[in-house]
Amino acid sequence: MDSSPIRKLVGYALDAKARGIEVLHLNIGQPDIAAPVEAMEKVANNNLKMLPYGQSEGTEQYRRTLCDYYSLHQIELSTKDIIVTTGSSEALVFCFNVICNPNDQIIIPEPFYANYNGFARSCDVDVVPIVAKFKDDFKLLPIRAFEEKITERTKAIVLCNPNNPTGYVCGKKHIIGLCELAVKHDIFLIVDEVYREFIYDGSPHYSVMASNKYRNHTIMIDSVSKRYSLCGARVGCIVSRNHEFLSQILKFAQLRLSPPTLALIASHAAIKSPKIYIQQAVEEYRLRKELLVECLRTTIPEARVVSPQGALFCMAELPLEDAEDFSRYLLTSFSDNNQTVMLAPGSGFYSDHSLGKKQIRIAFVLDRKKLKRAVEIIAKGLEVYNNQ
Amino acid sequence: MDSSPIRKLVGYALDAKARGIEVLHLNIGQPDIAAPVEAMEKVANNNLKMLPYGQSEGTEQYRRTLCDYYSLHQIELSTKDIIVTTGSSEALVFCFNVICNPNDQIIIPEPFYANYNGFARSCDVDVVPIVAKFKDDFKLLPIRAFEEKITERTKAIVLCNPNNPTGYVCGKKHIIGLCELAVKHDIFLIVDEVYREFIYDGSPHYSVMASNKYRNHTIMIDSVSKRYSLCGARVGCIVSRNHEFLSQILKFAQLRLSPPTLALIASHAAIKSPKIYIQQAVEEYRLRKELLVECLRTTIPEARVVSPQGALFCMAELPLEDAEDFSRYLLTSFSDNNQTVMLAPGSGFYSDHSLGKKQIRIAFVLDRKKLKRAVEIIAKGLEVYNNQ
Repeated sequence: MDSSPIRKLVGYALDAKARGIEVLHLNIGQPDIAAPVEAMEKVANNNLKMLPYGQSEGTEQYRRTLCDYYSLHQIELSTKDIIVTTGSSEALVFCFNVICNPNDQIIIPEPFYANYNGFARSCDVDVVPIVAKFKDDFKLLPIRAFEEKITERTKAIVLCNPNNPTGYVCGKKHIIGLCELAVKHDIFLIVDEVYREFIYDGSPHYSVMASNKYRNHTIMIDSVSKRYSLCGARVGCIVSRNHEFLSQILKFAQLRLSPPTLALIASHAAIKSPKIYIQQAVEEYRLRKELLVECLRTTIPEARVVSPQGALFCMAELPLEDAEDFSRYLLTSFSDNNQTVMLAPGSGFYSDHSLGKKQIRIAFVLDRKKLKRAVEIIAKGLEVYNNQ
Repeated sequence: MDSSPIRKLVGYALDAKARGIEVLHLNIGQPDIAAPVEAMEKVANNNLKMLPYGQSEGTEQYRRTLCDYYSLHQIELSTKDIIVTTGSSEALVFCFNVICNPNDQIIIPEPFYANYNGFARSCDVDVVPIVAKFKDDFKLLPIRAFEEKITERTKAIVLCNPNNPTGYVCGKKHIIGLCELAVKHDIFLIVDEVYREFIYDGSPHYSVMASNKYRNHTIMIDSVSKRYSLCGARVGCIVSRNHEFLSQILKFAQLRLSPPTLALIASHAAIKSPKIYIQQAVEEYRLRKELLVECLRTTIPEARVVSPQGALFCMAELPLEDAEDFSRYLLTSFSDNNQTVMLAPGSGFYSDHSLGKKQIRIAFVLDRKKLKRAVEIIAKGLEVYNNQ
C-alpha cells in the first residue's frame, strides 16, 4: 500500500519547522474555527468515573439526535438506519468490506479524496476512475459514462458531494440518475456527504437519502469532523435503509467493540448546538474561498483556478511541470521572511498519478490574512523555482 | 462473517431488561472499578477549543510516557518502537493486514478471545488452533506442538498473555521457546499483553518485548482499556523493534488519520497516575477471583472450575450439554427474585464451535456481593434447567 499522498510530505514540514521556519498548512482539511462551545463544555462537565464500552452501533439517544438533525435537512430516517462509526474512514472501510470480495471494483469520479484509494486497497478492491476534467470545472460526467464503466465485478459507485478535492456540487438530477443506475445494475451508490452544509453559491444540496425510492441501493457516509471542527473526535456514521446491508456492517462494528465514548459526548452536544454555529462557519469559509480565488488569480495570473462551489478546498493548476516536486521544494529549499507553505500535490488525488501533475489542492482552513500571505509565498516560491 | 459470539445474546438481555429483570453481566470484560481520577480530571480540565486531528502514530509525548511505563516493567523501548492505535482491536487488524496475504494462516492456542477469529476473517486469514485442554488447566502445549502446525502459509503465532478467556499465564521459558521458533521459521510472534498486571498467584510476567534478541520477529499488542477502566477510550498500541514492519503499520494508521484526541488525553493521564492505582485494582480482582472460584466450587459442586492465574475471567464446565442454550435460557425463561445472569458461552472461544460446549466464561468485573449472588442464580437456574 502507498503512503498517504498528503501525509508523505509531513517529514519535510517537520524538518522545516526544526530549522525555525513557520509552515502555513494548506495541505490538510483541519478547520481552525472553534468547535461549538456546547461540545467542549459537555466534555468538561462530564461526571463519568470511568469510560465504559458503548453500544457498537452507537447509543439510541445519539442516533435519535442524528435523525433530528437529518430531518432539518429533509432527510427522514429512523435510528435503525444508522450505525455510528469511528470516523468516516472506518465507515468506508466497513462498506467496502461488506459489499466487495477481493478484486471487485468500485467506480469513483476522480480526482478524489486520496484515502479512498487506500481504503479500497486495504480491502483488495480495485478503484475504477472516471476523470472529471479541470477544464470543465470538474463537472461530473453524464450517467452513460458511469454505465460504460460497469462490469460484472462492479459493486458500487462512490461520490463525495460536495466534493473533496474539487468543490463540485452534484445536483438532484445527477444524483437521481446515479440512483437509478445503481438499481438497474443492482450495485450500491455510496455518497460521502461530510461537507453537506459547506456550499457557497446557493446550490441546494440533494442527499442520496432524500428519497426512499432507492432504499436498497443507497448508502450515505457522514462525519462530525469538518462540520463542527471535531476532526480528532473520530465520529462518523453509515446511513442506509437497506437493513440487510446494515446487519452485515453491525458485525464489523461489534468486532471493534464501540466508537470512542468521550468523542460521542462531544459530538452529541455539537449536533444539538444552535444552527447559527454552522451558518457562521459557512459564511466565514465563503469569505475565505472568495479571497483565495481572487488572490490566486491576481497574484499568480498564469495559474488556472476552479472556484469551488462547496467543501473546503480549491484546485489550482500552476505554471510548472511537477507540483509534487514544487511542494517538496517549498518545504526543503524555500522560505520568505522565515515562512513557507505546505501544499497537497494534485496527483495524489488521481488513481493514475500521471494526471493532475500541475495541480495543487489548497485547503482554506486558515484565516484570511494567513491565506493571503500563503498565496504570496506560493507566488514568490514559484518565481524562484521556475528560474532555477 | 459470524456475529460476535459474546454480543449475540445481547438482544435477549435487552428483552429481559424490558421485562423489568435485572441482568448481572458476567459476559463482558468491562471493569466496574473507577478509572484513575487523574484521567477524568484531565479531560474535565482540558482547554481545547476544538478537537484537531492528532499524529497518526500518536504524539511523541504520549509514546514517551508509554516508554516510561514499560521501563518500570523491565521493557526498554524507544518512541520509534510504538504506534498508537484505536484500541487493541485495530492493532490486531492492522497486524494481520500487514503480515498476511489472503488465505495465509495464523496459529492461535484455543480457547481464545472470540474476536481474534473475526479480526482474522475480516482480513481473509485462516486461524489454525492449538487446543489447550480444560483438564490440563489450559496449560499451553509444548513448542513442538506449535512447530507441527507451521506450514508455508503460516505468518504468525498469536498469544494472549495472561490469557483471555483461560487466565493461563505463559512463563519466560515458553515465551523464549516461541520467540526462537518464530526466528527459525521467519514468522512473527504476536503477544497481546493487555492483562500484564492482572496476575494473582505471584507468577512474574515475561513480556515478548523483554529481550532485544528476537527484535525482527516479535510484536506486542497493548491497550489502556482494562488496566485503567478506559474501555471506551479506544486507545491501544502496537509495539515492535522491527521498524520495517512498523513502517507498513504506519500506512494503515495514516489512512484512518489519527486515534481519538480526547481519549489520548485521558489515557496519557492514566498512565502517569500513581502505581498504587493498579496495585489496588489488582488486589480487588484477586479477592473477587478467590471468592468466585470458592463460590462456584461450593454452590455448584458438579461444576469443574479452572482457577485463573491472571486476567479477568474464569472458565467453568457446567453439568449440562449446551452452555449456549443454557445462557439463552437464563435470559429468556428464568429469573430469581427478578434477577438473572448473562454468561459468555464457552464454544464462542473455540474456532471449532463443537468444542467447549459445556463451558462458560465468567468475567469477575462485578463486586463480590454481586458475584456471589450471580453464582447463586446460576446454580438455581441450572437446577430448574436440568429438571425440565
